[in-house]
Amino acid sequence: MKRQYETQQGCPIARSLDLVGDRWTILVLRDLHRGCTRFADLLRSLDGISPNLLSARLKTLEREGLVERRLYSEHPPRAEYVLSDGGRAFGPVLRAMYDWGTTYREDAAATPV
Amino acid sequence: MKRQYETQQGCPIARSLDLVGDRWTILVLRDLHRGCTRFADLLRSLDGISPNLLSARLKTLEREGLVERRLYSEHPPRAEYVLSDGGRAFGPVLRAMYDWGTTYREDAAATPV
Repeated sequence: MKRQYETQQGCPIARSLDLVGDRWTILVLRDLHRGCTRFADLLRSLDGISPNLLSARLKTLEREGLVERRLYSEHPPRAEYVLSDGGRAFGPVLRAMYDWGTTYREDAAATPV
Repeated sequence: MKRQYETQQGCPIARSLDLVGDRWTILVLRDLHRGCTRFADLLRSLDGISPNLLSARLKTLEREGLVERRLYSEHPPRAEYVLSDGGRAFGPVLRAMYDWGTTYREDAAATPV
């Protein structure tokens, strides 16, 4: 993944965003936190993402140690994606964003954009 | 601003990301939370952002009610940017991301990317 904030590496927020600040990744983590663990279910929940993009996001999260890939069927091979400790620890960010969005972006759909 | 997550408008996290999920916006909010309020100071802190992009991000935040623009000098005209209630309420998201980044992205700079 391209590092977006090259000049900001002293800041933990910028380092976090280098991983989760791209399109979709936070919503992938949201769904994994909800217990949505299979590729097809993630694809359905993340209506609008392409299979290639979802696959790339999951691979990055796996490589960076936030997600573990586990086979739950060998014939045919089927994998599920489970949060690691680091992935689970992202929960407070999701909850804070959920709370903020609930209060302050409630009518965002009605805002002219 | 382009709405990124058209199909996810039922989710407060996705609605939040429609505003703050683009490049730089969360770091602009970080600096405003730190009390960095003047354009030149923001530009210096956000080393790597262009003046046009910073200006566009501040305008969006102002339009969406997270930031208020106040003149602190009339001759020459100079503005500072102050968080509104909604902008200040984003603090818990920043703190959660800071905590997560401190613990789980500490050595991110050393990770092959």
